Amino acid sequence: MPNPRFKINKLTIIGVGLIGGSFARAVRKAGLVKHITGCGRQKNNLEKAVQLGVIDDYSQDIQTAVKEADVIFIATPVGSFQTVLEQIKGAAKDDVIITDGGSTKVSVIRSAESVFGQVPPNFVPGHPIAGTENSGVEASFDSLFNDHRVILTPLPETSKDALNTVIELWHAAGAEVILMEPHHHDMVLAATSHLPHLLAFSLVNTLTTLDEKQEIFDNAAGGFRDFTRIASSDPDMWQDICLANKEALLEHLDHFTHDLAELRTALEQGDAQTLKAMFTRAKQSRDDFTNKTDQKS
Amino acid sequence: MPNPRFKINKLTIIGVGLIGGSFARAVRKAGLVKHITGCGRQKNNLEKAVQLGVIDDYSQDIQTAVKEADVIFIATPVGSFQTVLEQIKGAAKDDVIITDGGSTKVSVIRSAESVFGQVPPNFVPGHPIAGTENSGVEASFDSLFNDHRVILTPLPETSKDALNTVIELWHAAGAEVILMEPHHHDMVLAATSHLPHLLAFSLVNTLTTLDEKQEIFDNAAGGFRDFTRIASSDPDMWQDICLANKEALLEHLDHFTHDLAELRTALEQGDAQTLKAMFTRAKQSRDDFTNKTDQKS
Repeated sequence: MPNPRFKINKLTIIGVGLIGGSFARAVRKAGLVKHITGCGRQKNNLEKAVQLGVIDDYSQDIQTAVKEADVIFIATPVGSFQTVLEQIKGAAKDDVIITDGGSTKVSVIRSAESVFGQVPPNFVPGHPIAGTENSGVEASFDSLFNDHRVILTPLPETSKDALNTVIELWHAAGAEVILMEPHHHDMVLAATSHLPHLLAFSLVNTLTTLDEKQEIFDNAAGGFRDFTRIASSDPDMWQDICLANKEALLEHLDHFTHDLAELRTALEQGDAQTLKAMFTRAKQSRDDFTNKTDQKS
Repeated sequence: MPNPRFKINKLTIIGVGLIGGSFARAVRKAGLVKHITGCGRQKNNLEKAVQLGVIDDYSQDIQTAVKEADVIFIATPVGSFQTVLEQIKGAAKDDVIITDGGSTKVSVIRSAESVFGQVPPNFVPGHPIAGTENSGVEASFDSLFNDHRVILTPLPETSKDALNTVIELWHAAGAEVILMEPHHHDMVLAATSHLPHLLAFSLVNTLTTLDEKQEIFDNAAGGFRDFTRIASSDPDMWQDICLANKEALLEHLDHFTHDLAELRTALEQGDAQTLKAMFTRAKQSRDDFTNKTDQKS
């Protein structure tokens, strides 16, 4: 019998890290969920999650963890989705709502198609635009999604009820919900997140191969620190994201490389006017972006 | 007669912006300087600097401003150095100590050679590794250099007394002083600062040309904000820096482009192992850098 005090009787979080842990904390704080079960590969992380009150209990076996769940939130790296969905299939209730926090959406939808034959109507693909460079349940906090966007990419066949329940959960977590077409989501995120991560990882690697390596890191200042912060992100997760969104990422990367070559030509030719025009245009766009986001927050 | 209470009777700051203004505030707070005269192209900025107590008075004419100065600090964009030094020549005292905050050092030394025939022994080239993306005297503050490095690049012919005075001023401003060979400085800074700025400007420009431009900026999060912060820097200053340090910057840029092409190949081939190895190496270097700088501060 569902408890009428709660919207959701049992929520199962698969992958109780920064995103999964913060989602659990937020919806619990909002009083929407009676019981939260965790599931993951690292037992000490799950133990910690219970100690911190993020989850009520856990099972490392997905089939056990999703039993009787009303909602399943998948917050593992996107490369694991096929395996996770295969375990869920047949073990969860027929009307279970499945949603996720994966950074790419087309690959996740393909995984669901491949496992279920077609994407189940109660599957609502999602992506919270929030995070830090830290990982693990100890890095999670209940306000991570506060005033942040969550992009949901429902398909034409997605159930309106399932979609509304997932929207309600994210609203309870303080997030603003945006709906987007899955391919479009992947193009936008490749530009704002995946390409910058690739460039940051690549730049740090280049610097480590230079003769001046030691002095480079000794004499780097705040600008460098900010610019390379995302190079401290989790390598497993980013390997997965890059491969899952390969096409969009390659397209943007080639566009970037082409533009950078133009800038290089201007620099080599000592073309002050072109350099200044490029820098001015970039500053204007960056300042516009900052002013807009400052107004929002 | 010099006032014995003060180490320096008159300091002239040419370019009273973020760096020049913060230097003036810091050495005044430390009680080292009796009188500070400002000089610059924007009269309203100089008026503001007097109102804020950053300088005591100003002249927009360099020859007037440097008259009787014991120390001259040049904090204008490096592209202006030749013109500034030409004005100083003949107008300042013979034993005046000249130092600067220019982001490149070889170009500054070449400017001094070109104006004076050889670099004057009392000229101490310098570069504080500090700044924000803001500019103008209103952005200046006395603790900007606190716990930051200042790289001085004296030549074999540089006077030890002049060097020691400049070191004393920076120490009074709370900075740690490092000595470095000028070419070496330019290679190190091209890597830690100039290349990241170029990449940030270039990435923001690329994104503004994409069809999804609006949604890209609407859906960008904290990682993007940090990564592109330096794209809000002053275009005039950065045009100057890039051209003044062209050789070192082109060398690092080509190195970066080569490494990025390797990463692209791994991505296109779906080579998860290579991607993960690259990301892991970058994360390790970035984390080492952060741990080291965290211990320092």
